[in-house]
Amino acid sequence: MSQSAYQELSTTWKRLHHFGHLQALAGWDRMSMMPASGNDARANAMAEMDGLLHSIRTNPQLEVFLDHAEREALDDAQRANLREIRRDWRTANALPAALVQKQSMANAKCEHAWRTQRPANDWPGFLTNFREVLKCSREQATFLSNQSGLKPYDALMDYYEPGMTSEKLDVSFGDLLTWLPDLVRKVRVKQAQQNVIAPKGPFSRSAQYALGLEAMKLLGFDFSAGRLDESAHPFCGGVPEDTRLTTRYREDEFVGSLMGTIHETGHGRYEQNLPRNLLGQPVAWARSAGIHESQSLSFEMQIGLSRAFVGLIVPHIVKQFGAQPAFDPDNLYQHLIRVQPSFIRVDADELTYPLHVILRYRIERDLIEGRIEAEDIPALWDAAMADFLDVDTRGNYTNGCMQDVHWSEGLFGYFPSYTLGAMYAAQWFAAIRRAVPDLDTQMAAGNLAPALDWLKTNVWEQGSRWTTDELVTRATGSALDPAHYRRHLESRYLA
Amino acid sequence: MSQSAYQELSTTWKRLHHFGHLQALAGWDRMSMMPASGNDARANAMAEMDGLLHSIRTNPQLEVFLDHAEREALDDAQRANLREIRRDWRTANALPAALVQKQSMANAKCEHAWRTQRPANDWPGFLTNFREVLKCSREQATFLSNQSGLKPYDALMDYYEPGMTSEKLDVSFGDLLTWLPDLVRKVRVKQAQQNVIAPKGPFSRSAQYALGLEAMKLLGFDFSAGRLDESAHPFCGGVPEDTRLTTRYREDEFVGSLMGTIHETGHGRYEQNLPRNLLGQPVAWARSAGIHESQSLSFEMQIGLSRAFVGLIVPHIVKQFGAQPAFDPDNLYQHLIRVQPSFIRVDADELTYPLHVILRYRIERDLIEGRIEAEDIPALWDAAMADFLDVDTRGNYTNGCMQDVHWSEGLFGYFPSYTLGAMYAAQWFAAIRRAVPDLDTQMAAGNLAPALDWLKTNVWEQGSRWTTDELVTRATGSALDPAHYRRHLESRYLA
Repeated sequence: MSQSAYQELSTTWKRLHHFGHLQALAGWDRMSMMPASGNDARANAMAEMDGLLHSIRTNPQLEVFLDHAEREALDDAQRANLREIRRDWRTANALPAALVQKQSMANAKCEHAWRTQRPANDWPGFLTNFREVLKCSREQATFLSNQSGLKPYDALMDYYEPGMTSEKLDVSFGDLLTWLPDLVRKVRVKQAQQNVIAPKGPFSRSAQYALGLEAMKLLGFDFSAGRLDESAHPFCGGVPEDTRLTTRYREDEFVGSLMGTIHETGHGRYEQNLPRNLLGQPVAWARSAGIHESQSLSFEMQIGLSRAFVGLIVPHIVKQFGAQPAFDPDNLYQHLIRVQPSFIRVDADELTYPLHVILRYRIERDLIEGRIEAEDIPALWDAAMADFLDVDTRGNYTNGCMQDVHWSEGLFGYFPSYTLGAMYAAQWFAAIRRAVPDLDTQMAAGNLAPALDWLKTNVWEQGSRWTTDELVTRATGSALDPAHYRRHLESRYLA
Repeated sequence: MSQSAYQELSTTWKRLHHFGHLQALAGWDRMSMMPASGNDARANAMAEMDGLLHSIRTNPQLEVFLDHAEREALDDAQRANLREIRRDWRTANALPAALVQKQSMANAKCEHAWRTQRPANDWPGFLTNFREVLKCSREQATFLSNQSGLKPYDALMDYYEPGMTSEKLDVSFGDLLTWLPDLVRKVRVKQAQQNVIAPKGPFSRSAQYALGLEAMKLLGFDFSAGRLDESAHPFCGGVPEDTRLTTRYREDEFVGSLMGTIHETGHGRYEQNLPRNLLGQPVAWARSAGIHESQSLSFEMQIGLSRAFVGLIVPHIVKQFGAQPAFDPDNLYQHLIRVQPSFIRVDADELTYPLHVILRYRIERDLIEGRIEAEDIPALWDAAMADFLDVDTRGNYTNGCMQDVHWSEGLFGYFPSYTLGAMYAAQWFAAIRRAVPDLDTQMAAGNLAPALDWLKTNVWEQGSRWTTDELVTRATGSALDPAHYRRHLESRYLA
């Protein structure tokens, strides 16, 4: 061959990067811009591209190149890239085509029916499709498990959190459960004695949009390489070179959109600051779903919900909506950190959110490992919601075990990433505070650079150069340590 | 083979339709949404896709399928589709790769330099690059001419106007020149005696946007399958299933954006109403650049500039900007049809526009046929502008022969489409008036359906089912007849 095997691989993934750009743009547009009748044509176009991307990744030549490249002289970054290329290749080539097709059909059928079954509270109807989804996901997990030697659930989680295992999760999540439900109760008692004024609407869409842009500017988002738009479900899309955030607006309430925008800005700055020297190669991709979530939660929870940042954003809030008593910074801060157990994960506050996640993790782990069946979900759900949050979900499937889209489309192993992200975020900020003892004073004075620069150097610009454990250890001195998360929550909510 | 050769071809062009969807979307986004720093990544992604589309079209198997398909049993629509597939295939396979590459580099270099040379009035600088562009285009034309037997210029024009020849154009454009410059002079004398009040700004961007949407609604644009956005150069992009129009705004003036939006709506409705039974196949594509332009000009000139339509749009204008004396319908109509010879083609009024086109056509035809050289352009330009429009362009390259991007990027043979479109539009409306004698009364009463339905049935839904001559003859009873255009202009401007 005229190029080295490594170069052949690198050229292939560059091509995937280019085609992936068009696919990412089409996905963003579908959610934020596309008129309703454009859907069929878009779905056909994106399916054609999915087919092309898959055929490139499953070209039998790649296996030969991968083996040759292992024996070539590579520098450390190339060696890391080869590791990540192999990981991406393995994922694409792992499953027999017949299983992929069967699973894709089962998931699509279940998800499509779920859209109407959820509002109809129709658990028995959902079950008829979901049994097949679960059967396929178990087959998938068994297949992957036989290849990798991981436990079946861990083999699924490996898509999103390479290196994470249920054994490790059981330790950190188990620890959380020893203190978090109690903390929630304590904080609720404390907050019940506080008199907090809620902001009064309406808050116009255009003013909320302008406020979101101001928050993004404060947080250093690069508008020459990204945008903010609107979609039904907020997300961060596009490509590292052109990062597209979305938010949504309710005119009676502005906090949801503001904090959502700050959250997506964290995802966005991570993407915008991924390493440029190997751009588009897997080594320059974001490390994992949990690390991605650790950036959005660093922005939303560590910075956005800090008393210092509230002081910075209030003038912009007043500028957009006019003055009102609720916008006193101390009052607004108390309003933002109000804790209220509720049914819905995506609406949950910082303190109760992990309990929603742990509940789901335990159920999906046991489903995949075959320790429970689909029929067992509601009783387990009801018991955990009562136990963790004093919330009664019996008979309420709509806002209970049918609320998330994940299981309906066969997405198992993702939920832990949300709370791993919150834990990593607390660990980043513990490290930042060690390096910058007066961090909060500086942030209150408008200087967010110490925190943002630290994240840029230690996380964003590292891409996938290291395994997650290596990344975290290099940045903070130790692997994941949930003690930082506990200290963060206790210091914010009991202070 | 398991499928017929025709089916193989049809499957290939369906695939091209899907990939083309992503490419069209990326092109639209680049002009209307993309932040500046996203440009390199977008250019790389679109170049990768161009390469893929080209490799699909130049697959050597296609020639075999084309030959086989000719001998298969096909219905009339399939037969027409095969004709158009062959045409698309021939275009993609016509030129040697070395010429395509050389030409692409010469054109890109010249166009890029032109962006700064034009404002600098730097004709000598432009010439150094443009000589190579012309040399390549002549090679291209000679190559195509040897293949098709068309004259070199006609072989280039065939990309945009299949079936049109410079011989036919010389007749129609020659005829125009016998009466149009005189008509311009007559109309200017007449209009000099009229007292017309000009609208007074500012006109806010958001009000202009709202007005544009109202105009699009009046004209039947389907917003469930399209959008209106903003770009530096207005265009109609996207795909038939999801048609994206753009316009641009000046706050001191609203007519440009309004009429531009109406113009693009004509392109847009053509795309939205292309035949759906063979969607994505070449037989379902728009017929030609001239026929496309005939739809935008039907909307802009035949409908938009009619006294009837002005009566319909005035209430929306008043709603957006408030009342002012200029918005009296009779006054506004006179304002809209004001004739004023000027330097710039894209800003020209309906009456002087064709003279800009004919000037360019004659020069580019003689350049390609080798009758003149690049150095001869300014003198010919100055002479024609003085002759046709009494405008002095000597020494003014910026607003003279360097004003258009076309030649700088090697685009020869396109200019005639603009005026062919205006002629076809007049011919459509002559036919519509024969079928609906009280057309103007109906339009004035708010009923645009007779005109729009006629265009839908006779042009839009025909796609590329017929050659251009067949299409026009089936719809109007005769091939292109510029007499309709003359009657239209005389009746509007001398009445």
